[in-house]
Amino acid sequence: MEKKKLLYEGKAKKVYSTDDKDLVIVEYKDDATAFDGKKKGQIKEKGELNAEISVIFFELLEENGIDTHYIKRLNKRDLLVRDLDIIMVEVVMRNIVAGSLAERLGVEEGTRLKQPILEFYYKSDELGDPMINEYHIYALELATPEDMEILSNQTMKINEILVNFLAERGIDLVDFKLEFGRGSDGKIYLGDEISPDTCRFWDSETGKKLDKDRFRRDLGEVEDAYHEILKRIKKEGTTL
Amino acid sequence: MEKKKLLYEGKAKKVYSTDDKDLVIVEYKDDATAFDGKKKGQIKEKGELNAEISVIFFELLEENGIDTHYIKRLNKRDLLVRDLDIIMVEVVMRNIVAGSLAERLGVEEGTRLKQPILEFYYKSDELGDPMINEYHIYALELATPEDMEILSNQTMKINEILVNFLAERGIDLVDFKLEFGRGSDGKIYLGDEISPDTCRFWDSETGKKLDKDRFRRDLGEVEDAYHEILKRIKKEGTTL
Repeated sequence: MEKKKLLYEGKAKKVYSTDDKDLVIVEYKDDATAFDGKKKGQIKEKGELNAEISVIFFELLEENGIDTHYIKRLNKRDLLVRDLDIIMVEVVMRNIVAGSLAERLGVEEGTRLKQPILEFYYKSDELGDPMINEYHIYALELATPEDMEILSNQTMKINEILVNFLAERGIDLVDFKLEFGRGSDGKIYLGDEISPDTCRFWDSETGKKLDKDRFRRDLGEVEDAYHEILKRIKKEGTTL
Repeated sequence: MEKKKLLYEGKAKKVYSTDDKDLVIVEYKDDATAFDGKKKGQIKEKGELNAEISVIFFELLEENGIDTHYIKRLNKRDLLVRDLDIIMVEVVMRNIVAGSLAERLGVEEGTRLKQPILEFYYKSDELGDPMINEYHIYALELATPEDMEILSNQTMKINEILVNFLAERGIDLVDFKLEFGRGSDGKIYLGDEISPDTCRFWDSETGKKLDKDRFRRDLGEVEDAYHEILKRIKKEGTTL
């Protein structure tokens, strides 16, 4: 399967068409951005690392009954995935208070939540991805109540799977962002990526941040964090 | 019933204890603030106008089966109300897009919503009243799911009652903010006020703003707007 036309270039990925109209190739870039693109940089080998990390998570989720867009890894940076009509609602799940939530609610970063918090954001760079609720989603016709039930239920299930998998590897899953979309078959699939760009991972013992916050907050050892995550989640003997 | 101790002074009202531990006196002030208190001013006779307007709405709601904190108007500015343990969630209902929602969602002010939008805000001046969802509310233990069901249902019902009442008087109810609280009997009552300070009212014919936006946006004729609302909703021959 080969890249045909560049369909879209985002902050961290490029998407190409293929000979199959239902499949696209996603190329993971080394570019890193933060604060709605105001902070820009590169993280060495991020593209390769995030592609491999995402594959491990997508395979784990598929094994546990979650429909994802992932089909196959083509090479270090390129994943073959199902082409989705993306639902313009970013779903955020939080197990531990961090980042914007800490500021917004005046709760200390690191506070463990008794119940996870589910949030929805309007996927709009122009508006700065504002937080919205289901009433806004229906008013803007971003999704139907039936779609939102699937998104919420799938996200809860994904959270359980990832939390348990990561806990066994000494990682706290603090929070993460998911995107979903509809395939040409009408079904809703998990899209985008699952990586230190889209999740907060903390070392369970030391609390050390092993994610993009190292870049956002200039904490140093950015590449090391991504390598560390890959090392911990990788099965013995699995390399491309 | 007389004012005893000043219990609390807010931006637009003062609250006094009475001889009855379950009742307080709310004094409506002429002070007006906007943008989290950054803009300050006075609106002539606002206290009297908002007290009288609120009484009309509270009585209308009570007649329609809504439990409110309102007991009796004592004089021009002072209402005797049930003392409530306020739920720290502000409930906003929107029928037409205006104000912060227009900016946040990039939707033109004046867009009529097919279905009303319900929003919750964390009542915290310090944090600037951030928008929250039910997950945040439960995490912060601001209310229980049972409370939130009552708040949502009551707000929907109140919206219907007010929209119909105002439509007959040539006024579009654009949006409004409500506060609820628990009485000493454990029941949830509607609290706060219902006035041009807490609602957006537009003339149905001309679209002219008849609410605090005239103050917020320096549109002039501020007092006139409050007088106009009172004139339209007042029953013949009802003065204190």
